[in-house]
Amino acid sequence: MLSRENRIIKDALKLKQRKYREKEGLFLIEGIRFIEEAIKSESIKYVLYSSKVYETKGYERILNSLIDKYEISNELLKELTDTENPQGAIGIVHKKIWSIDDIENNLIVVCDGIQDPGNLGTIIRTCDAAFGAVVVIKGSVDVYNSKTLRSTMGSIFHVPIVFYDDFKIAVENIKNKGYSLYAADLEADKYIYDVDFRKKSAIIIGNEANGIPCEHIELVDEKIKIPMIGKAESLNASVAAGVIIYEVVRQRFCTT
Amino acid sequence: MLSRENRIIKDALKLKQRKYREKEGLFLIEGIRFIEEAIKSESIKYVLYSSKVYETKGYERILNSLIDKYEISNELLKELTDTENPQGAIGIVHKKIWSIDDIENNLIVVCDGIQDPGNLGTIIRTCDAAFGAVVVIKGSVDVYNSKTLRSTMGSIFHVPIVFYDDFKIAVENIKNKGYSLYAADLEADKYIYDVDFRKKSAIIIGNEANGIPCEHIELVDEKIKIPMIGKAESLNASVAAGVIIYEVVRQRFCTT
Repeated sequence: MLSRENRIIKDALKLKQRKYREKEGLFLIEGIRFIEEAIKSESIKYVLYSSKVYETKGYERILNSLIDKYEISNELLKELTDTENPQGAIGIVHKKIWSIDDIENNLIVVCDGIQDPGNLGTIIRTCDAAFGAVVVIKGSVDVYNSKTLRSTMGSIFHVPIVFYDDFKIAVENIKNKGYSLYAADLEADKYIYDVDFRKKSAIIIGNEANGIPCEHIELVDEKIKIPMIGKAESLNASVAAGVIIYEVVRQRFCTT
Repeated sequence: MLSRENRIIKDALKLKQRKYREKEGLFLIEGIRFIEEAIKSESIKYVLYSSKVYETKGYERILNSLIDKYEISNELLKELTDTENPQGAIGIVHKKIWSIDDIENNLIVVCDGIQDPGNLGTIIRTCDAAFGAVVVIKGSVDVYNSKTLRSTMGSIFHVPIVFYDDFKIAVENIKNKGYSLYAADLEADKYIYDVDFRKKSAIIIGNEANGIPCEHIELVDEKIKIPMIGKAESLNASVAAGVIIYEVVRQRFCTT
C-alpha cells in the first residue's frame, strides 16, 4: 500500500490545485464509471484505489484492467477527493490537447467567463449530446476542477475543447475556419429562431452575472436572444446554452 | 438587538428544517434583491438584518420599507444562512398556496422526483421565463430549501407551483383541465419536434438518475425525447426541461 510519503501520492495530491494541473497536464477523476470512460479514451495514467472500491458495482473491470494501479488507505483516498462518500477509486488522467484545426464539428460553443463549474460542465455535456465542440476563454472556471468534471458526466472525454488566453485570437481563428459567430445577449434584436444555423456556427455564452463584455460583442457577426415571455430577466447560463444548441440541432435535424 | 433567546429568532432558526417550513407555511430567503422581490409579491412577514447589511448596495430600500424588521448580530445572521458571506439580511416569507384551478398558464412542467435543488430551482426559473407553471410531486427535493430558492433567482415569487402527494391524482387533475400530458423519456419514439405543443401541454421531467417511474409513464398521452446525436447518454435534467420548454415557446411564438 502506498503511503503519504510516496512520490506518486504527493504528485496526485498536488493535482487538487489548478496550477499543478496546468503545469503537469494531468487531472483527477473519481468513480468507477468515470474511470472506465477514461480508459476507453486512452487517456488514463494510473489508478489509485482503497478497500472501499469493493463496495462499488463494476470495480473488477477497473482492477482487472491492464492500467497501472496502486492501493492506498481509505483516509488518503478521501483526502484526494471532494466527495463525502468517495467510490474508492481515483484516476490520474492526461489532458488531451486540441487545437482549432482538430475541430470537425459544425457547432462550437465559446465559453467566455462562465464562473460556475456546474454550468461549464453542463455545457460540455450538452455539446456532447449535440455533437458540438467547446472553446474556453481565459477567465472562465477551470474545466478540470472536480465539480466541473462531475457535471460533464464523462463528456469531458468526448468533446473537443480548445483553450484561448485571448478572445480576439479565438474569434479570428474561429472565423478563419468558416464559422459564423453569434453572441447570446439579452439586448439583442434578433431571436434565435430567425437565425440560419444550418451553416457552421459558433455561439458565445458569457458570464452568469455580467454576460459577454461589450468589446467582445463588437467582434461577432450577430447578437441573438432567447424570447423571455414571462417575468424572469434571464435564464441560467447552461439552460440558455442548451436552448440555443438545440435550436441549432432542430434546424439541422428537421431539414434532413 | 434581538438575542438568540428571542421567540422570533428561535422560530426563524427552525425554518432551516423542511418539517418546520411545512408546518408553519414559511421559508427563509437571503439577500437584498431576493427580499425586494418578496416585498413586491406581498409575501414577506418580516426581515432580520445585521450591521453587515450596510455593505450591500440597495440596503436602504429594505430598511426604509414599511415591513417589520429586527436587528440581530452578525453571528446569528450567519447561523441563519448557508452562505459563506451572507449579505446581511434575511427575509421570513409566507408560502403562497396554489391549486390547479388557479393555473392559467398553457404550459405546465411536472417535476416527478427531481433530486438536485439546483435543477429544481433552475426549472422554476425557466418556467418563469416561458410563462409556465410548475407541479411538484412528492419525492422531489424541497422547493423551499436555500439552494433551490437561490437557483430560482427570485422566480419563486412569479411562478405558480402546485404540490401533489400522489402522481395519479396530479395527472387526473391536469388532464381534466384540458392539458395533453407528455413524459420526457430517453426510450421514447417521438421527437419533441414532432409534437404539436400549441395546445395546452404538461411535460413531466423525472429523476436525474432514474427518469420517470414506468407506472407513471403509462398514464401519459405520449412519450417524447430530445435527439442525442453525439456520445452523451442524456442531458442534465434542467437543460432537458429547458430545451422542451423552449420548443413549446418556439412553436407558439413563431406561428403567431
